[in-house]
Amino acid sequence: MVQLNSHFKKLKREYVFPIIEQKLAEVRGKHPHLSIVNLGVGDVALPLVPSVAKAICDATQEMTTRAGMRGYGPSEGYSFLREAISQKCYGLCGISPEEVFISDGTNGDATNVQELFSSKCKIGIPDPTYPAYLDSAIIGGRLSKVVLLPCTEESGFCPVPPTEHLDVVYLCSPNNPTGVAMTRIQLKAWIDYAHREKALLLLDNAYEAFVTSPEVPRSIYEIEGAKEVAIEFRSFSKSAGFTGLRCAYTIVPKAIQKGKLHAMWMKRQSIKFNGVSYPIQKGAEASLSPEGLKETQTQVYEYLQQGKILHTGLSKLGFSCVGGQDAPYIWWKVPAGKTSWNYFDEILEKCHLISIPGRGFGHYGEGYIRLSTFTTADQAQLALERLCALK
Amino acid sequence: MVQLNSHFKKLKREYVFPIIEQKLAEVRGKHPHLSIVNLGVGDVALPLVPSVAKAICDATQEMTTRAGMRGYGPSEGYSFLREAISQKCYGLCGISPEEVFISDGTNGDATNVQELFSSKCKIGIPDPTYPAYLDSAIIGGRLSKVVLLPCTEESGFCPVPPTEHLDVVYLCSPNNPTGVAMTRIQLKAWIDYAHREKALLLLDNAYEAFVTSPEVPRSIYEIEGAKEVAIEFRSFSKSAGFTGLRCAYTIVPKAIQKGKLHAMWMKRQSIKFNGVSYPIQKGAEASLSPEGLKETQTQVYEYLQQGKILHTGLSKLGFSCVGGQDAPYIWWKVPAGKTSWNYFDEILEKCHLISIPGRGFGHYGEGYIRLSTFTTADQAQLALERLCALK
Repeated sequence: MVQLNSHFKKLKREYVFPIIEQKLAEVRGKHPHLSIVNLGVGDVALPLVPSVAKAICDATQEMTTRAGMRGYGPSEGYSFLREAISQKCYGLCGISPEEVFISDGTNGDATNVQELFSSKCKIGIPDPTYPAYLDSAIIGGRLSKVVLLPCTEESGFCPVPPTEHLDVVYLCSPNNPTGVAMTRIQLKAWIDYAHREKALLLLDNAYEAFVTSPEVPRSIYEIEGAKEVAIEFRSFSKSAGFTGLRCAYTIVPKAIQKGKLHAMWMKRQSIKFNGVSYPIQKGAEASLSPEGLKETQTQVYEYLQQGKILHTGLSKLGFSCVGGQDAPYIWWKVPAGKTSWNYFDEILEKCHLISIPGRGFGHYGEGYIRLSTFTTADQAQLALERLCALK
Repeated sequence: MVQLNSHFKKLKREYVFPIIEQKLAEVRGKHPHLSIVNLGVGDVALPLVPSVAKAICDATQEMTTRAGMRGYGPSEGYSFLREAISQKCYGLCGISPEEVFISDGTNGDATNVQELFSSKCKIGIPDPTYPAYLDSAIIGGRLSKVVLLPCTEESGFCPVPPTEHLDVVYLCSPNNPTGVAMTRIQLKAWIDYAHREKALLLLDNAYEAFVTSPEVPRSIYEIEGAKEVAIEFRSFSKSAGFTGLRCAYTIVPKAIQKGKLHAMWMKRQSIKFNGVSYPIQKGAEASLSPEGLKETQTQVYEYLQQGKILHTGLSKLGFSCVGGQDAPYIWWKVPAGKTSWNYFDEILEKCHLISIPGRGFGHYGEGYIRLSTFTTADQAQLALERLCALK
């Protein structure tokens, strides 16, 4: 038998989605005609906007012509999209098109980036957060080098720079699942830490389009000193409803380690990745056009409205929750004495509502429920009405 | 400074494409009006077929509606495409839809698959072959465990099972760059080796659509005993001109190690990959429809015709070459006393033709030139006329 990667066995996290699916199936089995409100998965609830669809179709048709056909594109993405991102998303930050790498998703980039680091690196990972950072570190044999950074009520649900040394630190802000974003001051503390400790920050900023608080920057590069110590991941999934289309981008500034990391990422991508579909890149470009921005921002605004409805409603009902203002998630504190799975079950049974138990996002997620605000106004309203049953 | 992955420094292979680009720029600088025939890169030369384009546009439009919108798809691909592949590509082999994993490219799958194996595994890699297998093994810190399998004239340009033990063996058949495909008998020898040595075969079969020799199977699973020991990679890039669209698939049979590898790949993909764009998967499905097959096979036939023209022409001119019958590449022996770079320069200078020096595909590629037959009839004819200048 071929010796397999034994680190896979260390993936001990509870995978909540299959369990939720099963519980849902049970409820549906008992009550086949029940209408269930799904505020579980963090996925788009509104259709693809017309300007993006048009650009994808136009590009596809273009490929059917001799003059417009396209084969392999550059691994790092087409210039037209890298330039559009540089100008329109980082105009004030001075990020050059060469520092923008197009990919098929932040998930892949944020996990694959570990390949650039020595196996000796100590890696800080927030808890709770998006589980792929830790899972990919485990698969890569790095578990013993991982330091969890608690994001609890005491720390305002944000990771705080530790006294100990770390080499690489994941940050997810606006955070999934807590829905809380780090302010300029909080991010600056991490940038200072990174300079002091010669560490590197990996900022998953997939939800930047949802930021409305003035004290939260849209990019870490708005803050001085960030370009020398931070890689930033962003995604069209959340800004433009691309979850089903797959397009994201990663900023690797040349100022990090005199360009070494930039060159390594370029090499890694050229060896293991062949770029993103041409029509999809044209669609992503269209989402940054004046028309595209208008259409996609309307959707983001709608999701944020649902966040407001849910946050206000839950608070009025006397529940404690955060989030929703700078991210499409509400982080809801479970009443004392119950676990997040207990409460998930209770919400499903009494309110016919799907949520996610916070436990699925890490040890410190226990005691919380995540609600996604990727939903429509009528569903958010219906959810609130039903949640009254919990009182 | 963050300690970086020092294995990147071991990537010593000469990257031929940038050098070729530079040489081409020099020629163009000297002779701005020169028409240059490019038989270098293995990329499509014909436009996207109409049935695929239509399916992509229809799916994209579908996503703009409330009823047809799609968010995240399954990491492993949509059932409609997995089922179509199971039925239409593996109908006689008994590969189930669950064993088909959709991805954005064979390149990624064939390199990422290394994550499933212990770092102690000895890996066999043909030489010359597609360079990403070796490069990704180097990045992954596996260089000391790599055993190169020479594909020389003596071995009929195919790797032969060694006497020593290997745990994992890459095979690329039809082979890039030699254009030679392994016969049933040759593949059977590897399957027997794998059973004997408890080894695993990783067959890159991206070029299967080009196979015309009756003794060459279209899939390794046509051969008994393969399902227990082989993973097969295939791509829509080559069968349907998808290089610019990005869609491929990997077969991980459940019969390998009692389903363990299948479960691990599923887990790996669910953690690090978020699936392929929905419209692109619909396009891939369309390429397997009767109309799609007719259109795409016409293109494959055209490329094969160019292969015949070039192979026959070179032979008539007295050159020694193989390939072109089961793959879109011609492997052309450089006249005695010259290196592949020498000859590349000579061909560029005398014939204004871009090829690829075999050295770029490995140590045993020295002494050869690869010609891509992804070209049009008039370009192939023009190439031959110009090659007379070498006599």
